[in-house]
Amino acid sequence: MYYRGNKMEPDKASVRKVLDQAKAAGRKALTAPEAKGICDAYGIAVPKEGVANDGAGAATLASAIGYPVVMKIVSPQILHKTEAGGVVVGVKNAQQAAEAFASIVANARRYDPKASIDGVQVQQMLGGGQEVIIGAVTDPAFGKLVAFGLGGILVEVLKDVTFRLAPATREDALSMLDGIAAAEILRGVRGTDPVDRDSLATMIEKVSRLVADFPEISELDLNPVFATRDSAVAADVRIVLDFTPPAPRYRPKKEDIIRQMNRIMKPDAVAVIGASNESGKIGNSVMKNLISGGYQGAIYPIHPSADSIMGKKAYKSVKDVPGVIDVAVFAIPAKFVAQALREVGEKKIPGAVLIPSGFAETGNVAGQDELVAIARKYDVRLMGPNIYGFYYTPKNLCATFCTAYDVKGSAALSSQSGGIGMAIIGFSRSAKMGVSAIVGLGNKSDIDEDDLLTFFEQDDNTQIIAQHCEDLKDGRAFAEVAKRVSKKKPVVVLKAGRTSMGARAASSHTGALAGNDKIYEDVFRQSGVIRARSLRDLLEFARGIPVLPTPKGNNVVIITGAGGSGVLLSDACVDNALTLMAMPPDLDAAFRKFIPPFGAAGNPVDITGGEPPTTYQNTVRLGLEDARIHALILGYWHTIITPPMVFARLMVEVVAEMRARGIEKPVVASLAGDVEVEEAAEYLYQHGIPAYAYSTEIPVAVLGAKYRWARGAGLIPAP
Amino acid sequence: MYYRGNKMEPDKASVRKVLDQAKAAGRKALTAPEAKGICDAYGIAVPKEGVANDGAGAATLASAIGYPVVMKIVSPQILHKTEAGGVVVGVKNAQQAAEAFASIVANARRYDPKASIDGVQVQQMLGGGQEVIIGAVTDPAFGKLVAFGLGGILVEVLKDVTFRLAPATREDALSMLDGIAAAEILRGVRGTDPVDRDSLATMIEKVSRLVADFPEISELDLNPVFATRDSAVAADVRIVLDFTPPAPRYRPKKEDIIRQMNRIMKPDAVAVIGASNESGKIGNSVMKNLISGGYQGAIYPIHPSADSIMGKKAYKSVKDVPGVIDVAVFAIPAKFVAQALREVGEKKIPGAVLIPSGFAETGNVAGQDELVAIARKYDVRLMGPNIYGFYYTPKNLCATFCTAYDVKGSAALSSQSGGIGMAIIGFSRSAKMGVSAIVGLGNKSDIDEDDLLTFFEQDDNTQIIAQHCEDLKDGRAFAEVAKRVSKKKPVVVLKAGRTSMGARAASSHTGALAGNDKIYEDVFRQSGVIRARSLRDLLEFARGIPVLPTPKGNNVVIITGAGGSGVLLSDACVDNALTLMAMPPDLDAAFRKFIPPFGAAGNPVDITGGEPPTTYQNTVRLGLEDARIHALILGYWHTIITPPMVFARLMVEVVAEMRARGIEKPVVASLAGDVEVEEAAEYLYQHGIPAYAYSTEIPVAVLGAKYRWARGAGLIPAP
Repeated sequence: MYYRGNKMEPDKASVRKVLDQAKAAGRKALTAPEAKGICDAYGIAVPKEGVANDGAGAATLASAIGYPVVMKIVSPQILHKTEAGGVVVGVKNAQQAAEAFASIVANARRYDPKASIDGVQVQQMLGGGQEVIIGAVTDPAFGKLVAFGLGGILVEVLKDVTFRLAPATREDALSMLDGIAAAEILRGVRGTDPVDRDSLATMIEKVSRLVADFPEISELDLNPVFATRDSAVAADVRIVLDFTPPAPRYRPKKEDIIRQMNRIMKPDAVAVIGASNESGKIGNSVMKNLISGGYQGAIYPIHPSADSIMGKKAYKSVKDVPGVIDVAVFAIPAKFVAQALREVGEKKIPGAVLIPSGFAETGNVAGQDELVAIARKYDVRLMGPNIYGFYYTPKNLCATFCTAYDVKGSAALSSQSGGIGMAIIGFSRSAKMGVSAIVGLGNKSDIDEDDLLTFFEQDDNTQIIAQHCEDLKDGRAFAEVAKRVSKKKPVVVLKAGRTSMGARAASSHTGALAGNDKIYEDVFRQSGVIRARSLRDLLEFARGIPVLPTPKGNNVVIITGAGGSGVLLSDACVDNALTLMAMPPDLDAAFRKFIPPFGAAGNPVDITGGEPPTTYQNTVRLGLEDARIHALILGYWHTIITPPMVFARLMVEVVAEMRARGIEKPVVASLAGDVEVEEAAEYLYQHGIPAYAYSTEIPVAVLGAKYRWARGAGLIPAP
Repeated sequence: MYYRGNKMEPDKASVRKVLDQAKAAGRKALTAPEAKGICDAYGIAVPKEGVANDGAGAATLASAIGYPVVMKIVSPQILHKTEAGGVVVGVKNAQQAAEAFASIVANARRYDPKASIDGVQVQQMLGGGQEVIIGAVTDPAFGKLVAFGLGGILVEVLKDVTFRLAPATREDALSMLDGIAAAEILRGVRGTDPVDRDSLATMIEKVSRLVADFPEISELDLNPVFATRDSAVAADVRIVLDFTPPAPRYRPKKEDIIRQMNRIMKPDAVAVIGASNESGKIGNSVMKNLISGGYQGAIYPIHPSADSIMGKKAYKSVKDVPGVIDVAVFAIPAKFVAQALREVGEKKIPGAVLIPSGFAETGNVAGQDELVAIARKYDVRLMGPNIYGFYYTPKNLCATFCTAYDVKGSAALSSQSGGIGMAIIGFSRSAKMGVSAIVGLGNKSDIDEDDLLTFFEQDDNTQIIAQHCEDLKDGRAFAEVAKRVSKKKPVVVLKAGRTSMGARAASSHTGALAGNDKIYEDVFRQSGVIRARSLRDLLEFARGIPVLPTPKGNNVVIITGAGGSGVLLSDACVDNALTLMAMPPDLDAAFRKFIPPFGAAGNPVDITGGEPPTTYQNTVRLGLEDARIHALILGYWHTIITPPMVFARLMVEVVAEMRARGIEKPVVASLAGDVEVEEAAEYLYQHGIPAYAYSTEIPVAVLGAKYRWARGAGLIPAP
């Protein structure tokens, strides 16, 4: 037997034996006794039970287990037992047990005359408590996932189920109990008992461990699990097998990724394959951007005939270049890429930036596979194909055919799509968002989001990573890396295609509940990733998060000149799971000293509209000085007495004064007023206070994103 | 008896009798037999039942009704029957009925020795089908509301319940069955029967009629109602009474509102009470704005001593002005307002714009009540107090101390708060949003959102009405007016304070489910109001909706140069309940003629990134020409081949060409690219194509808002 709480190791050998038997028999589903045996091996609590071969045996068995019992047909061919008339519940005595045996077998024979009948299972009948589902699925991107939800049709209709990567930690398992909309039910409502959270979490952990240990278990349902005040027992188990797991993806070691990515992203020498003097050609744009962007390393144009390009000596092949090359940027038609890539490999260049299109995205999968094979052979990492290239501003490097970019900063952005990449560039320039890198990933034949995360994690020029993606080639690798990186630097992801939840073929209950996007949602949260809901969110979060200091606690205070803004800012706080501090009486009194008698302290602190600059100054200073307050949201109202730029300069002064005294707190601002507030907002933003004109929601969303990160990284507790 | 389907009138007299009895007895709750009698009078189906006075009587009654029965204590003092041990279910024969009687009475005596026991109710026991709740509550703003939801604790936890104003139409009642998240349950899932929608809708209608007819019924629960394939029967009824309904609000007749509002909003003569030559004074700013704004009517400064102000002859009182005055703008301290208002009344001026603060918002409720009393006496309508005033651009009227505003257009905006009003002004100016009016409502002592709706409904200069509010003084009046107006002109509302769902004292189950914001949500939908979720939404919807022609159907097509934008635009379509047209094969083939072989037709139509202007031109022209397509979303990708302004000019040309041919469809655009796309977006917007740089979500949200309006107004069917 197996002890609760994982104190004893699971009996893997007996699981292996059952699975091997099924495989040998060509079966993709386990019988109930087999499934129960697997549960026993992993200490997953199931009802007392046995299999009877005749009516008398059923009666004896049932009496030993204790009434009531439930009886079910055992046949590898009959999966839908109820439909087959193969289930009798509430069997109360020995006579009923014998009768039930007879009727179950008769029904089963009628339902499927060819089915082999292995007997009738007699099982302790459970009931009471709360019915829940614990299950597992195999996702194409994320692999094994454990699932949890309440039992019943309503939950199925509402798709109120939550997922975690398997194996799940105890913390993951406990978080699942709070991760469903109906979580309150588990805590006991209207006089019902709360469930035994410990038992449920243990069962989740064990299921997740089981499917992680045995990849051939593709789907698993414990449905229902009866969760009572002091136990959790799975009434029914279904296990679906798949003995053809997908081939594991190529993943270099972390140190190899870092070594190669550092040379690619921070090269001392760049080759441009297809460099050109002819304006309008991609190879010409790349050369221009490298040179005009101010890149100080060596630039080697590669061209079949030219002697020099844009004043740089040209070579026929990278192999002719005398020095070491760190990265080769390809600006040649698709059909020439493979040969040039071989030469890159022979030259031992660690990275190739494949701008050319005409590969998988146009249906030329074979062409792309050929490139990947060459790259593997020579240990070259590929960025693309079908990309705009990349920027790395600390090296003044614009390895792209797009316009040069020069606003340096600490945000690293990437996009799967060129269109979104251009939007990133335009927004960044327009908003003066400081950027360390912008990277196009395109077809992601090799380098993908997790390679970038691994590089940016150790890149001191980068403080936040924001990524747009449409899919994750290896969601599990991404999640593992993101979980580590997000502890140090915020990771923001805009996952496109989130609403195109294509119907998935699934043969289990849990599988049918698994909407693709819900999985991304839960795994992102499990990994500490801040999910952006829109392109603007991605951009604003990337811009604002590195500007804001990390809050030291959850207490947020709104200080506003307009009561109306205060109400909308409060709404936004609730939307963003921010905690409006309950104002302590002494602090309330302290704020009241600065505001008119008809102003409202409490939170929001409403200083009222007609106040001079000193009122903003005094209240904001107090908000920054008092250690119980951890973040400020300012609501400015344009008046003649306190014009926008007067307000902006004053706020920057107060924040700077406090910083000089060692006090740093996140401050964001919403500005309501005539067009002059736009200049004030820009001034505030450029001086460390993310500020927005005509919006109460965006500044609070930016602060909310910073909080989500800080909580996910464990820097401050959940509120 | 009462027939199903409202074929017979309800028996109001018997309801009146029951209620009068309860009132006379000083009771606020009805007994079960009384409640059942009321249901009978309104044809609300309840189980067969009767009241027994002893065990033998219970047995006889139960046998007549048919077993099983449920038996319950009848006592006006015992509301929580189960708690009192006063309920026995599943009584199967005469002997059990007699026993149940004895135990129920004994339990009740133990529970409350002082309770008077009127007998034991014997009731047909229902079961099977789907348990639902139908109820009614009395909301402070909206009055009587009917509620519908599924039964059970889970629904309560998830607050999955929907509300409509009572009385509800049949259409309203049917919409409630689809208005809950778990609506699918009612249609039958996993082999369960669908419910009888007709019976449920009839019951909702009758409940809503009952509470509308008898305002003293403050809360009502039918819980549970057993809804089966062919019937709906309420198993239990609870009715709570309140014989002190709030006093009805003052509402002038529609024609009076229009007459007075037309003089206030479009005056031929304006008095400024407190006009001043002194810069910095509010009375000076108002004068400046009136004059410099270009107002062509008469302006009468009122001042205690000055002969003239800013070149206009001044008067000591409005009563000294020789001509007729349409509106008086107050720019004097609070303490002088009452007296000046009396003079305004004596002068028979129909409207007073009360800029001064210092009334209810500072706790001076009496002062405000005094103004209202004066206004009623003299039939003066009050705007404010505590406002910035208002703008009406068709008359070049800036009756405000804020900056003048002159971008004329068809959007009328209002705000409860001055801060939000300033944000409206700044945004409008910055975005060149054409505005007909901007109005501050402040304390709303009199003129409120429904007065404005009534005015703007008949104002030919206004095509859309966008309102910010924190509360509705009379939600029912607002909803009634909005329902009528929104059929003609879009009504957009930003309801602030939506997340501060204060716990409400409620003694019924339905009451406990009534979160304040959910009621606003449902009533807005019932009234055809487009709800804005954020300040920016309010502003962008007000800007974009009047620019877009009304779509003639639900088929939306995305045409994009960037596949990545296409995916995000599709996400946004799903978020905004837009229908991506399933592309017919012939249309698919027609699009394919214009795009490269590796481009993707279908929907989105992905023309790919490297295409010249003609590809955008050809595909957009086709999209506009084909009558099966009703709206276009454009995803532009900045390239050298098709620069931003080339794209913008071309799109404007194509749309204009089509308009000349009588083809008008809504077109919105998302622009991804370097900063030049900002100029292109502005050009597109100014020429009738709402366009946004660096955002895929905002243009689609604007199109979605237009669709919500068109569907709500019945111009196109729900998809």
